[in-house]
Amino acid sequence: MTMDIKAYLREKRIIVDKALKDIFPEPEGYTAEIVAAMDYSLFAGGKRVRPILCMAAAEAVGGVENDVLPLACALELIHTYSLIHDDLPVMDDDELRRGKPTSHKVFGEALALLAGDGLLTESFRLMARMDLKPGLEPSSLLRAIALVAEAAGYQGMVGGQVLDIQWEGQNIDTSLVGLIHRHKTGALIAASATAGAVMGGGNEEEIQKIEEYGGKVGLAFQIADDILDIEGDTKTLGKTAGVDEKRKKNTYPAAIGIEPSKSMARQLIEEAVNALASFRAEANPLKYLAGYIIERKR
Amino acid sequence: MTMDIKAYLREKRIIVDKALKDIFPEPEGYTAEIVAAMDYSLFAGGKRVRPILCMAAAEAVGGVENDVLPLACALELIHTYSLIHDDLPVMDDDELRRGKPTSHKVFGEALALLAGDGLLTESFRLMARMDLKPGLEPSSLLRAIALVAEAAGYQGMVGGQVLDIQWEGQNIDTSLVGLIHRHKTGALIAASATAGAVMGGGNEEEIQKIEEYGGKVGLAFQIADDILDIEGDTKTLGKTAGVDEKRKKNTYPAAIGIEPSKSMARQLIEEAVNALASFRAEANPLKYLAGYIIERKR
Repeated sequence: MTMDIKAYLREKRIIVDKALKDIFPEPEGYTAEIVAAMDYSLFAGGKRVRPILCMAAAEAVGGVENDVLPLACALELIHTYSLIHDDLPVMDDDELRRGKPTSHKVFGEALALLAGDGLLTESFRLMARMDLKPGLEPSSLLRAIALVAEAAGYQGMVGGQVLDIQWEGQNIDTSLVGLIHRHKTGALIAASATAGAVMGGGNEEEIQKIEEYGGKVGLAFQIADDILDIEGDTKTLGKTAGVDEKRKKNTYPAAIGIEPSKSMARQLIEEAVNALASFRAEANPLKYLAGYIIERKR
Repeated sequence: MTMDIKAYLREKRIIVDKALKDIFPEPEGYTAEIVAAMDYSLFAGGKRVRPILCMAAAEAVGGVENDVLPLACALELIHTYSLIHDDLPVMDDDELRRGKPTSHKVFGEALALLAGDGLLTESFRLMARMDLKPGLEPSSLLRAIALVAEAAGYQGMVGGQVLDIQWEGQNIDTSLVGLIHRHKTGALIAASATAGAVMGGGNEEEIQKIEEYGGKVGLAFQIADDILDIEGDTKTLGKTAGVDEKRKKNTYPAAIGIEPSKSMARQLIEEAVNALASFRAEANPLKYLAGYIIERKR
């Protein structure tokens, strides 16, 4: 199999960006400020990894991207909210994100907090209102919403953030590093693929295999991120490089070293692709995306 | 018609509290801290107005409280998250809520922020996973989720918060005061009743009338709150009285005076009850609740 994954990513990003543009009305009237703040972060150069994974998973089970587009957008809204809240002074206190000043630097802390709250809430409105692929039951959408909520909530991303803060600066063992990573980043990445498979009309076996794929890709993604923080430069990353070490963040590179982290990520990607062995050519983008996750430069 | 609304409230509060207790596991393992923080605010003496309105609305259309219990709990989670974020130093900077130290005073600002995020997200998981009243379509649940999300989001509660901050300390006209109130508090109160009617199996006419009821009760609730801030005492309120005036908050009492605010609230309640004129005795609790909204002492 061979495909131009970069062209695929470019094409999908355009589709996602267009759909994201259509979510909020022109900033005017009483919602002008909050819409401006939500838009600012939503269009600050995101890679759209979660929406694209979601669309690729839908395609892998025979669906089309339109079957999951609002879900794909909702995932980006959730990711964006998490970045805004993460960057707040009470959390990571970051001034730069994707090469631009963070939300609270532009809009103040109160509006940044509310922009995050607004994005998270809107993501669920988007999902609950989305049209279903012909033949799909509304109960599948309820399942997808629950999957996403669980991955984003205290048993997933929010729980991972709590652990991350709780253990920052302390020496912890590798299994705890893994627990943090799987929750903080892995859960929502995995849910992006799984919910995409559900809404793309996959059968139980397909959904289960894509869930396995998602779990492995999610963890590999965070490891790759932590490696980039060390090896990348601030300009390409669009965020300050080297901050993890300064803050004594608990990362795989810190816990087991860079090279072992790289082979661990490679191993995970291999396993993720293997989980899709029985899938046909429609799953090729999903397989290639796994590779992109660890090869990207930002 | 005559009924003991206080006994009704007591009874329902016990049911809601029990259901809320069952949402989170015992705080242990990696979620111990975040569950403790979410629980702390969830059981800090809330009146459970939104869940009870939701259950009373379900009963008013011939449903039973069990048809909507997870939805009712979800509404309380959303309300609780909004209080936690509201009390943060970057927002209202409150140290006391319902007579107890606010979340960030107990858990620190980072965990308080995440507890709010966790509660909001969990509310949608609860709804998406709830069982349906026999005969009700899953699409009704999707409708209820969308209603709640819209009421809680940037077009509702979050949008109202933005306005509230934006106009704090400035002289604004009465219509803007109304806009703020309807969004900040009114929208979620209204959605509590409307979503309850949807999940209780109401027909379109019933749902529409309960929506009208909810809109009026929601606005009256906020006016009553602002009057209590002036006339109540800190001990009974469980929060610092008189802060609105000190902060030059935009309230009806500040804009039009206390007595006109009181008659406005009474008028709204009358209209709300009238909207339910065609309902049978099952709607009595909902009607009585409207009166309680403006007669309560805290």
